[in-house]
Amino acid sequence: MDNKRKPYQLVSREWKKEDTIIKLKNTTIGAGNFSLIAGPCAVENEDQIFTICEFLSKFDLKLLRGGAYKPRTSPYSFQGLKKEGLVLLRKAADKYKMSVVTEVMDTNLVDEVAQYADVLQVGTRNMQNYQLLRALSKIDKPILLKRGMSSTLEEWLLAAEYILSGGNGQVILCERGIRTFETATRNTLDLSMVPLIKSLSHLPIIVDPSQGTGVRELIEPMSLAAIAGGADGLIMEVHNNPDQALSDGGQSLYFDQFSALVKKLAATSEFFGKKTTFYTESITN
Amino acid sequence: MDNKRKPYQLVSREWKKEDTIIKLKNTTIGAGNFSLIAGPCAVENEDQIFTICEFLSKFDLKLLRGGAYKPRTSPYSFQGLKKEGLVLLRKAADKYKMSVVTEVMDTNLVDEVAQYADVLQVGTRNMQNYQLLRALSKIDKPILLKRGMSSTLEEWLLAAEYILSGGNGQVILCERGIRTFETATRNTLDLSMVPLIKSLSHLPIIVDPSQGTGVRELIEPMSLAAIAGGADGLIMEVHNNPDQALSDGGQSLYFDQFSALVKKLAATSEFFGKKTTFYTESITN
Amino acid sequence: MDNKRKPYQLVSREWKKEDTIIKLKNTTIGAGNFSLIAGPCAVENEDQIFTICEFLSKFDLKLLRGGAYKPRTSPYSFQGLKKEGLVLLRKAADKYKMSVVTEVMDTNLVDEVAQYADVLQVGTRNMQNYQLLRALSKIDKPILLKRGMSSTLEEWLLAAEYILSGGNGQVILCERGIRTFETATRNTLDLSMVPLIKSLSHLPIIVDPSQGTGVRELIEPMSLAAIAGGADGLIMEVHNNPDQALSDGGQSLYFDQFSALVKKLAATSEFFGKKTTFYTESITN
Amino acid sequence: MDNKRKPYQLVSREWKKEDTIIKLKNTTIGAGNFSLIAGPCAVENEDQIFTICEFLSKFDLKLLRGGAYKPRTSPYSFQGLKKEGLVLLRKAADKYKMSVVTEVMDTNLVDEVAQYADVLQVGTRNMQNYQLLRALSKIDKPILLKRGMSSTLEEWLLAAEYILSGGNGQVILCERGIRTFETATRNTLDLSMVPLIKSLSHLPIIVDPSQGTGVRELIEPMSLAAIAGGADGLIMEVHNNPDQALSDGGQSLYFDQFSALVKKLAATSEFFGKKTTFYTESITN
Repeated sequence: MDNKRKPYQLVSREWKKEDTIIKLKNTTIGAGNFSLIAGPCAVENEDQIFTICEFLSKFDLKLLRGGAYKPRTSPYSFQGLKKEGLVLLRKAADKYKMSVVTEVMDTNLVDEVAQYADVLQVGTRNMQNYQLLRALSKIDKPILLKRGMSSTLEEWLLAAEYILSGGNGQVILCERGIRTFETATRNTLDLSMVPLIKSLSHLPIIVDPSQGTGVRELIEPMSLAAIAGGADGLIMEVHNNPDQALSDGGQSLYFDQFSALVKKLAATSEFFGKKTTFYTESITN
Repeated sequence: MDNKRKPYQLVSREWKKEDTIIKLKNTTIGAGNFSLIAGPCAVENEDQIFTICEFLSKFDLKLLRGGAYKPRTSPYSFQGLKKEGLVLLRKAADKYKMSVVTEVMDTNLVDEVAQYADVLQVGTRNMQNYQLLRALSKIDKPILLKRGMSSTLEEWLLAAEYILSGGNGQVILCERGIRTFETATRNTLDLSMVPLIKSLSHLPIIVDPSQGTGVRELIEPMSLAAIAGGADGLIMEVHNNPDQALSDGGQSLYFDQFSALVKKLAATSEFFGKKTTFYTESITN
Repeated sequence: MDNKRKPYQLVSREWKKEDTIIKLKNTTIGAGNFSLIAGPCAVENEDQIFTICEFLSKFDLKLLRGGAYKPRTSPYSFQGLKKEGLVLLRKAADKYKMSVVTEVMDTNLVDEVAQYADVLQVGTRNMQNYQLLRALSKIDKPILLKRGMSSTLEEWLLAAEYILSGGNGQVILCERGIRTFETATRNTLDLSMVPLIKSLSHLPIIVDPSQGTGVRELIEPMSLAAIAGGADGLIMEVHNNPDQALSDGGQSLYFDQFSALVKKLAATSEFFGKKTTFYTESITN
Repeated sequence: MDNKRKPYQLVSREWKKEDTIIKLKNTTIGAGNFSLIAGPCAVENEDQIFTICEFLSKFDLKLLRGGAYKPRTSPYSFQGLKKEGLVLLRKAADKYKMSVVTEVMDTNLVDEVAQYADVLQVGTRNMQNYQLLRALSKIDKPILLKRGMSSTLEEWLLAAEYILSGGNGQVILCERGIRTFETATRNTLDLSMVPLIKSLSHLPIIVDPSQGTGVRELIEPMSLAAIAGGADGLIMEVHNNPDQALSDGGQSLYFDQFSALVKKLAATSEFFGKKTTFYTESITN
């Protein structure tokens, strides 16, 4: 959409015309699919993650999210179950035939996380952690690259370029809101990035309405808006007991909210010409 | 969504539960309708505005936008045809049975603009021009109140409160993008405001994807996203010859783009349960 | 500092090499002077403004600020004494041989405010109120043009260009903080504008540390920083009883704070080679 | 300055009243000293770093900056000499009796960088790289913690809290500009943080006018402003040949600019009651 020479190359449409497709054992991201990644902000204990997983499996969900290593603003906040969290995620996901998406915060943890996860997530605070990006460029697993909270489109694509140029072409971009002056929402979800990325890059892009708004009631409308804008999927927080959650409870969906939403997501993505990879039985509005 | 005491009153859902409905001679904004306001950034001459109006009338559009008085960043840019522009807007709108939406920039111009327009627009630069808001609170015409480019939700609602508290309850809010660090788009369109406003206020809210992105190619996806997010309508720029437009050519739609878009807007708003007030014949996807 | 063609002309150094000097009856802004404008956020009553004026006159202050017409975010906040406030400002200023700096919010008020004020201020919310700027370009009084809270340097200079191109060359620019994500301060005071404006334009520039920080304790250090950065002066809020002030009490200085500060301002501006137009007796650190 | 319960503890004035003092072999940061850290953006070769070091030693500078591992937005930009750069920094610093300040980008590099550096810098992109902060909390060297480009005051202090709570109390904070809508400067240098940090925390705070403005001509005025605002020091880029620099040439000072500036810095810090740790001979304005 602009003609000046772009500073990135491998991530661009000019370099590769066809959409990049991310193939997991149990599902495919991109390729006209609409994917839904859901789960708790953080794994808290075995009961919690199995309860949530069982619930999600009713909707035939293929992708489980959950934090084991949690980047927290305060050193005094719950920091995640770490390796134990990874083990639990894997166990729960295996039982319910799901793939695990979880964050890796440091180069030292890449091997450990890669052992348990199917997709490794780079969080917003680490989008420009270039040593981490380089380490992830050397593994053979897909990377979910969240936009930095104050990153421009160009900086984001260049962060992806680090991964591609190191040899790993399996990158999924994730818009998760940017930092602005507005305080009514936790972040300002910048949905214009979805069609803009689609036009400039071949990489799939998903949206995180939980982090992107920080307000539970906004998750449904912004999820539908993300689909309408062309997103390849969503990642969102759901919890069996949001009021007792150890982190991000206020933006996690209750089970009944999630149930109602899944139905609408399926119908909406179908309307916009995407195949849903979940809730694939007959859909009635 | 938060429980602290709100600084606004008359605009709030607590004050008035039912949605505010804006009734014009030829159409109604709100009340489950999806409205489309279209036209050039600025009226340039008789030929231009009649050509555009004729084109819009093919889609049964009820609401014509066009600037007569233009707030321009530079004193050396085209400032609009002023009163002549108002006359032309009225003439064209009358011929094609449309209502006129146009900006009023100053208290001194309220009477003049009100004489020709059906809806008076307050632009983003004047959202906190309180003398103007007070003057508009005393007239009997609907006001389209654009969000200030760096206004919080609360400041925006308080600007509307100025109009309501002065006696004019006919206010339509318009999200048009905010100023952030991102330069790939002209503004960052903050669609989360749509459901948030719907929850906090009874006033209708529409979205301006032209100003909100500044990128022609983003107008379609962001329009669809706005509908999915629950907007009561859209306002957008269309021009018979964008490449020669005296202002905002780069974000104005070509006629053929607009034709394709109208069809999608109608189908999409119907899918989301809104009645379209335009293109009301049989819709085929 | 950059070589691309500038969109402004009359305000630029290229157009006019020598610094613009603003001459008032009792003092001169620019020309190597360091000016101090002080007074309450708003005129509240005769007692208040005379008490404050008497206090300021002890320091030989030449410039009194005070709001008569106040742009307030909420319609339910104190809106100023309006014309009565102007009368009181004039009366107090005359008694103590000061010049009046006060805000004009609307074209309709230009004549009235110009009758009482020596310098007419355009507030941050009206920086792009172009009708107002045009009206002010036609009067023969200096204009204090505050930066819009989300205005770029270029937009600010173009707003000044409106005034100069209409015929009024007496413009003083005022940096008053911009809107950012940071909430620890009310605004982010952008002192880099001071040397940048000095380099690009011949207009004098002053700084408002009261609005610029919104925190009383920051006024002293940011005032000194503004002087070090090259500002031609300061505008600040001082009140005989900040805790009871009808507006902006939390960022108004107490009398004793102001007394201590004036001394430091005088010494500091002298150190940086500026002549102070106040507190001109012997200065001891 | 506000009374709500603070989320940080060890970094607060309430916890520790006296200023934290950072003692290096050859100089002390804090304790009423004004420190100057200077050097190239990146070490490029032996000749360059020795030339610059020799130049700096004429002013009795105690602190050398220089990047060996460089976090670059693009994977195709010069990434630093890495270990070789560290070796050169050490060698040059030892010859001229200086201390080395250099960035550490990753937990894996902490030991290596700590072996060569006297102060380890955490860059703006890594301010919330919590694994790195934890690793640095376990070493016995001072940490220079730059503010994240979109970090609030609170998040910044909490990042420091990670280091203190892990056992390392030797933290120097560095304001280096935040990301805003303004494009005339590379970042918006937020000098209000200096007195605000001084009031809330016992940690020393310095300012980076090079990164903070990105404009060579602004370095002098913003340096003086930083001193006036109460900063404990400055970190800035100087290069023997800025026009050929491999990174950040446009914001690096020429030698003659630096020479002129050092004199002014010394005089100004003396005026504001700080002892300079450089250029300590007789100072004439």
